[in-house]
Amino acid sequence: MNPEENTADLVARFDFAATLARIAEEVRDLVGQGKVAAYIPRLAEVPADRFGMAVATLDGRVFEVGDAATPFSIQSISKVFTLTLALEALGGDLWKRVGREPSGSAFNSLVQLERESGIPRNPLINAGAHVVADVILSSTPTAQADLLEFVRARADNRAIVMDEEVAASERDAGFRNAALANFIRSFRNLDNPVERVLDFYFHQCALQMSCLDLARAFLYLANRGRCQRSGQSVISAERAKRINALMLTCGTYDAAGEFAFRVGLPAKSGVGGGIVAVVPNALTLAVWSPGLDEKGNSLAGAAALDRFTALTGLSIF
Amino acid sequence: MNPEENTADLVARFDFAATLARIAEEVRDLVGQGKVAAYIPRLAEVPADRFGMAVATLDGRVFEVGDAATPFSIQSISKVFTLTLALEALGGDLWKRVGREPSGSAFNSLVQLERESGIPRNPLINAGAHVVADVILSSTPTAQADLLEFVRARADNRAIVMDEEVAASERDAGFRNAALANFIRSFRNLDNPVERVLDFYFHQCALQMSCLDLARAFLYLANRGRCQRSGQSVISAERAKRINALMLTCGTYDAAGEFAFRVGLPAKSGVGGGIVAVVPNALTLAVWSPGLDEKGNSLAGAAALDRFTALTGLSIF
Amino acid sequence: MNPEENTADLVARFDFAATLARIAEEVRDLVGQGKVAAYIPRLAEVPADRFGMAVATLDGRVFEVGDAATPFSIQSISKVFTLTLALEALGGDLWKRVGREPSGSAFNSLVQLERESGIPRNPLINAGAHVVADVILSSTPTAQADLLEFVRARADNRAIVMDEEVAASERDAGFRNAALANFIRSFRNLDNPVERVLDFYFHQCALQMSCLDLARAFLYLANRGRCQRSGQSVISAERAKRINALMLTCGTYDAAGEFAFRVGLPAKSGVGGGIVAVVPNALTLAVWSPGLDEKGNSLAGAAALDRFTALTGLSIF
Amino acid sequence: MNPEENTADLVARFDFAATLARIAEEVRDLVGQGKVAAYIPRLAEVPADRFGMAVATLDGRVFEVGDAATPFSIQSISKVFTLTLALEALGGDLWKRVGREPSGSAFNSLVQLERESGIPRNPLINAGAHVVADVILSSTPTAQADLLEFVRARADNRAIVMDEEVAASERDAGFRNAALANFIRSFRNLDNPVERVLDFYFHQCALQMSCLDLARAFLYLANRGRCQRSGQSVISAERAKRINALMLTCGTYDAAGEFAFRVGLPAKSGVGGGIVAVVPNALTLAVWSPGLDEKGNSLAGAAALDRFTALTGLSIF
Repeated sequence: MNPEENTADLVARFDFAATLARIAEEVRDLVGQGKVAAYIPRLAEVPADRFGMAVATLDGRVFEVGDAATPFSIQSISKVFTLTLALEALGGDLWKRVGREPSGSAFNSLVQLERESGIPRNPLINAGAHVVADVILSSTPTAQADLLEFVRARADNRAIVMDEEVAASERDAGFRNAALANFIRSFRNLDNPVERVLDFYFHQCALQMSCLDLARAFLYLANRGRCQRSGQSVISAERAKRINALMLTCGTYDAAGEFAFRVGLPAKSGVGGGIVAVVPNALTLAVWSPGLDEKGNSLAGAAALDRFTALTGLSIF
Repeated sequence: MNPEENTADLVARFDFAATLARIAEEVRDLVGQGKVAAYIPRLAEVPADRFGMAVATLDGRVFEVGDAATPFSIQSISKVFTLTLALEALGGDLWKRVGREPSGSAFNSLVQLERESGIPRNPLINAGAHVVADVILSSTPTAQADLLEFVRARADNRAIVMDEEVAASERDAGFRNAALANFIRSFRNLDNPVERVLDFYFHQCALQMSCLDLARAFLYLANRGRCQRSGQSVISAERAKRINALMLTCGTYDAAGEFAFRVGLPAKSGVGGGIVAVVPNALTLAVWSPGLDEKGNSLAGAAALDRFTALTGLSIF
Repeated sequence: MNPEENTADLVARFDFAATLARIAEEVRDLVGQGKVAAYIPRLAEVPADRFGMAVATLDGRVFEVGDAATPFSIQSISKVFTLTLALEALGGDLWKRVGREPSGSAFNSLVQLERESGIPRNPLINAGAHVVADVILSSTPTAQADLLEFVRARADNRAIVMDEEVAASERDAGFRNAALANFIRSFRNLDNPVERVLDFYFHQCALQMSCLDLARAFLYLANRGRCQRSGQSVISAERAKRINALMLTCGTYDAAGEFAFRVGLPAKSGVGGGIVAVVPNALTLAVWSPGLDEKGNSLAGAAALDRFTALTGLSIF
Repeated sequence: MNPEENTADLVARFDFAATLARIAEEVRDLVGQGKVAAYIPRLAEVPADRFGMAVATLDGRVFEVGDAATPFSIQSISKVFTLTLALEALGGDLWKRVGREPSGSAFNSLVQLERESGIPRNPLINAGAHVVADVILSSTPTAQADLLEFVRARADNRAIVMDEEVAASERDAGFRNAALANFIRSFRNLDNPVERVLDFYFHQCALQMSCLDLARAFLYLANRGRCQRSGQSVISAERAKRINALMLTCGTYDAAGEFAFRVGLPAKSGVGGGIVAVVPNALTLAVWSPGLDEKGNSLAGAAALDRFTALTGLSIF
């Protein structure tokens, strides 16, 4: 980015269609590499050779390449949506129950939970998402429907669903999550029954969305908390900024430092192979490719984001 | 920040003198609170009631308030300077010897070193700075003089010195650092004698600089790696961006997440009570007040940075 | 113990009745001190001022003092019984699924489980007992009845029961155990459903036995694995010796070193306030007093064992 | 051991010469296996195919097989001698500065030191031995000479020396120990300069003794603290018993549970390949073979001890 040019001008000028096409070409060799998440059958059967990417700008344009319209299991990306809802429900008191520091270890580690008496390090690791889910469950009797409604409104797509088969499989394979939730409960940092918290959590992970859906749905975080269509406030500008900060420091498991270093954008990844990134005041990006690196992030997806910031100069640093 | 306005315009328009005066007023009650670092006599005798702040913009202006011209012990802030030198000396190979992830625990923890076989989590914790010091020592026979020269050039101030009494006291009190360095050496991740590495490290910590010095000295990181006066490259734009990313994720001990969340700027703090922050493509900020919070960051200094981003809207998120 | 005198002679000669009376007198001031386990109502309502102690010798004599005939919740002491059954069921293969080293941390820590991939450090911590329970469940369709039958036979008392109210309360409060079991299951080191393992585990903890019952029931471990009445083998001499070794190194949570140091006998404690100790080739001791020290062992009970070995000279060291 | 027979009778009757010969035969295939400690040249050059074993009984007899008269570097076995001296110097106050619990992790781990604020878990790990060395250094100006005198008197051999070349090599390779000692010093749990503590520690490790020396030198621990020749007290019976308890729970690094389980005797091992074990009220055993297992204990030595207790029935359990 030329410092003499502001971001809005740059976005207006930039040929994102050509950029996405070029990136798809450049990362082609990585697509199909890495390991597709196999702990539940439904995820394991996703073809490894998929790649899609979408960009949505604040001025309403959308660009795409490859499988950008194919819905996939967003998994941990959903933690950004639930964090938004929990912040609206509980306000700053949420931070009494969950921290804001990077975890510095594997995404489902129990160690830090024990050292820190059941206060998860941040809301974007599994343990933190359980607390966030618990907060939402305490604030509304229709938590699951509310979340679905929120996501559909953000993405402007009524066809978005939660995949019940994925949710059921998560439950059957979710011993680690059951361990975490029971552990947090033992420190009295969950108010709702463990089964209910896990059921909600597994359903949020089972949201099926495409890159196009995700790029659109995250635009409020690039737009100081406002809906890019109506201009109405989804969340305060302050909170939008802070969610972006959390994504940057904690959004990609134990590779957050590496992501900030290479990509330089707030981002959230999921084991379904999706990653969403935000360029504040400018645009959102979503990428999907199912093969994961050893830290659980999409291999081709991370490379694509890296190329995007290199080609466009768009980075927060 | 109004999204329709670019940062350069904003900086040109903003009344930083008034902003700094207002901040000094607002944080006045915090000045003198917290604990002054007392592990070495020279630091312990610094009066707790000091507060200074400076802003330096890319267009060459400098603003200040309070004790902004008083030199203090920059301590860990020096890690950004040595990282810059080590990156120039070794290039990307540096990352084989030190990681880029937040440490997720106290800044001088030995635990993670053990788990990760002597590879420090990042170059901005003490262990990482030892490796960085070792790299510099292997690259030049005049490491200490080179560092001093580099810092004087960046700050445009030939009067900057290293306080020998502080360096000697650090050595006498530095059992934790000696433990770290010996531990890293046991994993063969130091090439130079432990005593030499520590001697260099204790001297870098003993650099005496004022807020004005620091704000000027960090401008290359706000300016894509270029000197703001000569326009010459200090470090590549890519590396400048990446050092900023490291400061954001790892620059303030175990409060990096909190800093990103509240302040939203790359920053590096030291136990002398200084903190430097960078607004990419715009300006740098340095603040100093000796009283520390329980995580080792300046109490009034952190509050002042918080107020600065709140008042100006300048944040990377 | 006089080295010229053998243990059998000593036991025959010693006035255990007087010794127990003296001990009860000496520890009187400690009875009622410490904290009664309060995580389930049934345990919390046990009067703190109880103290009982019993000695059973290989030649068939039994001595007692105080509340030695009062049944109490044996809790973790049951782990010795289930270990015996699991060793009979699976033999040495048991040690592929659970270790034999002291845990060096709190009795229900999840940290080591994670570091050691779901292999609990030893069978006398909660995690290890879950694996032991799983082994028994896989070996018999009537695990709970078999355990009860085994304990009744060992103690020669058909009146021994499992307290269903305690078992139900354990389940309702057992989030930490549920976390542990789910965590082990996530490493595939449990074959049976988590709920079934926990149900069996909570029932074994709910066994109600008196000091007299426990002293009698442990005699096979003092008698090289043989029943002291019939002479028939309960377990091989080799295994009896090894269970004793495990009790010494791992039987009293994170105080095993302290117990070996002060008492010098293999012992197993429970949060119900009971402790059983073994003098190989000589006798068993059981003591009960509900007030616990900060490591979860009976305060007056530990002191009573300490006095017993001091007064009699009976120690394995 | 037949329970009707006392230990003294058994020892008097047993043909230890034949037993040792048989054991040497049985473990022959293991001799030369494992890895010889190679971190210092002097240790690395010891031929791997050595095996020696000695038994010393309280009634003054000594039995041997193989290389039982060859001096070797006793390394960590020396910790038992220094613990004895420190207990005499400081009494029970020693336990304010070092714990008595198994460490549950690798013998030179820094993790637990950090968690427990510089109080080593027990005196038989390296960190604990540093504190013990510090206590001795504070109690006498001739610590090294006193230790040598003590060991020569116990072994009744004036020819025992400390190998200066080994001590010097330990110092040159001892980064891990330097890390530990500096770390403990940072918690103010060392009073003497780190260099002095390490110098003494490296010299104690460099004691050269044979199996015959060690078996004789440990007899006071089998004899309730008394010299087997003069009958004079070396240490109180209480302390002798407690040192034995510490050896059982902490004497063989992270294999103490395994040793108690398989061998069932208090024992202390060293990376030089030696292991000494105590049968209280009966005898001592020393074995040496340089090849180590993955936990740092002599491979053939551990097997030989295992066979000894299996063949003789001598075990404390």
